[in-house]
Amino acid sequence: MAKAPTVYDVAERSGVSIATVSRVLRSPAAVREHTRERVLAAVTELGYVPSAAARGLAARRTNVIGLFFPGHDETVPDQPVDSARGDTVPIVDDDSDTASDTENLYFDEVLRGAEIEAWRRGFALMVAAGRGSSREALVTDIAGRVDGLAVLARTVPDELLAYVARRIPVVILAGAQRADDFDHVSASNGPGMRTLANYVLQDHGVHDVVYIAGPTDSPDDAERLTGFRNALADSGVAERNVRILRSDFTRDGGRATAARILAAERPRAILCSNDETALGVLDVLEQRGIRVPEDVLVTGFDGITAGRHSRPKLTTVHQPMVELGRAAVHAITARLDDPNLEPQAFTLPVEVVLRESCPRV
Amino acid sequence: MAKAPTVYDVAERSGVSIATVSRVLRSPAAVREHTRERVLAAVTELGYVPSAAARGLAARRTNVIGLFFPGHDETVPDQPVDSARGDTVPIVDDDSDTASDTENLYFDEVLRGAEIEAWRRGFALMVAAGRGSSREALVTDIAGRVDGLAVLARTVPDELLAYVARRIPVVILAGAQRADDFDHVSASNGPGMRTLANYVLQDHGVHDVVYIAGPTDSPDDAERLTGFRNALADSGVAERNVRILRSDFTRDGGRATAARILAAERPRAILCSNDETALGVLDVLEQRGIRVPEDVLVTGFDGITAGRHSRPKLTTVHQPMVELGRAAVHAITARLDDPNLEPQAFTLPVEVVLRESCPRV
Repeated sequence: MAKAPTVYDVAERSGVSIATVSRVLRSPAAVREHTRERVLAAVTELGYVPSAAARGLAARRTNVIGLFFPGHDETVPDQPVDSARGDTVPIVDDDSDTASDTENLYFDEVLRGAEIEAWRRGFALMVAAGRGSSREALVTDIAGRVDGLAVLARTVPDELLAYVARRIPVVILAGAQRADDFDHVSASNGPGMRTLANYVLQDHGVHDVVYIAGPTDSPDDAERLTGFRNALADSGVAERNVRILRSDFTRDGGRATAARILAAERPRAILCSNDETALGVLDVLEQRGIRVPEDVLVTGFDGITAGRHSRPKLTTVHQPMVELGRAAVHAITARLDDPNLEPQAFTLPVEVVLRESCPRV
Repeated sequence: MAKAPTVYDVAERSGVSIATVSRVLRSPAAVREHTRERVLAAVTELGYVPSAAARGLAARRTNVIGLFFPGHDETVPDQPVDSARGDTVPIVDDDSDTASDTENLYFDEVLRGAEIEAWRRGFALMVAAGRGSSREALVTDIAGRVDGLAVLARTVPDELLAYVARRIPVVILAGAQRADDFDHVSASNGPGMRTLANYVLQDHGVHDVVYIAGPTDSPDDAERLTGFRNALADSGVAERNVRILRSDFTRDGGRATAARILAAERPRAILCSNDETALGVLDVLEQRGIRVPEDVLVTGFDGITAGRHSRPKLTTVHQPMVELGRAAVHAITARLDDPNLEPQAFTLPVEVVLRESCPRV
């Protein structure tokens, strides 16, 4: 293994002082964009990871585990905390029924699982969220402050992760299991969708099906689509006899896609690659007076709270989000205990949860 | 200020070795109960707080903020992470409509706010949850590992907190603001309930009201009840003309209390001290064919997700849970920056959110 690059290498390659490199890594917003980009390019090319050791201190544990979830701080205001309005309580009308809470729910439950598992093992948790800064700067920053890092799939280039992983354990959260050198933790997306789709195709005997996939950059969507295709094969249904559309994982997207479907046909079942999409489909079917499940079966995937309260209640595949967070911490601490472990892949079990929108036969 | 007690003082008072004191504080479950109780009693009496400094190391910042939320790990299994079931996906019927998600939602949103605010300020977060151990041991443990500690109200005796606060900033989360030496962060419970109740009493002109309070040990319930009583005074309604009942903040409790109310009378409005209770009330009214809001107005408090999806949608007072977490971190870092600040009290604004169960007049 080559010698790990130092701050001097980064400074030399980007043509700036060591102090400027440090400033870019500590407070990227305080450095001019041109300079920042040049330094970050050098950081990425060299795979430089600042750390206690690299800073010339004795190598030491921080007892902190990092969680890299870029963009997931968007619902947390970054204005100063407002405690000024005191006793004045505004009265507002709620028009938030389209508000999407999937991402928050996912993030919150993963965070709860990771935080409590970390506590049980004696670690603190640091979440790198952060809008604005570049992802490269964020990852580089948090990597220097933790003993191990869990990274949401597809948020950081593999080359950068590979360099980080030379110094500290890195686990990739969600997304397809890949045969690479990283540890992976994900839910059983493919088998989950396959089981649910087979329940529709075989137990309900419904073959007149539309499948609404999610965005192509979702780390989980491709596996769910593969699971659906496997179910078609299991059930002897030719793919040309079903329609596969693509939406964007939002409730509004589900509504638009449902309207598009109903303009052309009325299938006997609409299988959705996540719950938000399915809730949008339910909205449109109710507006049109189309009965669920009598006229159309509808299913989702994720197990968000809103699906337990919809009318009809939504049949879904429940993802173990708390367990994903726990497993990430487990994988990191296992590698801290034994750096020579083979790459680990945790595929966490899911459950098909039958509710009113696709009931038990 | 007296000299801070040391581990030697604890050992001497409890008649055990220093090593045993350390073991009690690190792994209380590994020490016999009799010994553990003796050591913890001495810890509490002396107000001993283990810390980097007390352990004889140079005083240093950990860059970790602590959050003490005992019992809030109950939904996170403490068995090993299960990744064994692989491709087998069970199909289950959902009977979880009574599942309470209020506490998780509250904890999750406070955690998200605290974690992201901590990240923005360069801190990691450590959550002390933990069943099993005594709360005294938990607080003592986490206090020695963080730069500052946010503690859920009414979970730790004031005397113990006072000793912890001699070494590190302590902020009390939720609960009534008190004139003590602690920093406090809470939502505007009283004014929130007062505003909503006045909307019912004055704008709807409904005086035939039942109020369902929560458990007496809730840190927030007493303030809400005071807010309701203030609204009665504001509106010129004598307290003897309304009924005030007590339930337990759960949906099942709300159902039972609603059945009790309807056995005696049918009020024109039922005001509940939290959303779960109100959802239980809605369940019973629907079963009985009593229309909401036409026959009975129903209101809650908290702003949980389920209330956005109920039929009818629930009118409520929305608590700023994410902001509570942020404000706790803010208060701690403010005191780290200036230890001589006067005790701070942050009362965060709430909003009355009108939905179908008590609509805009």
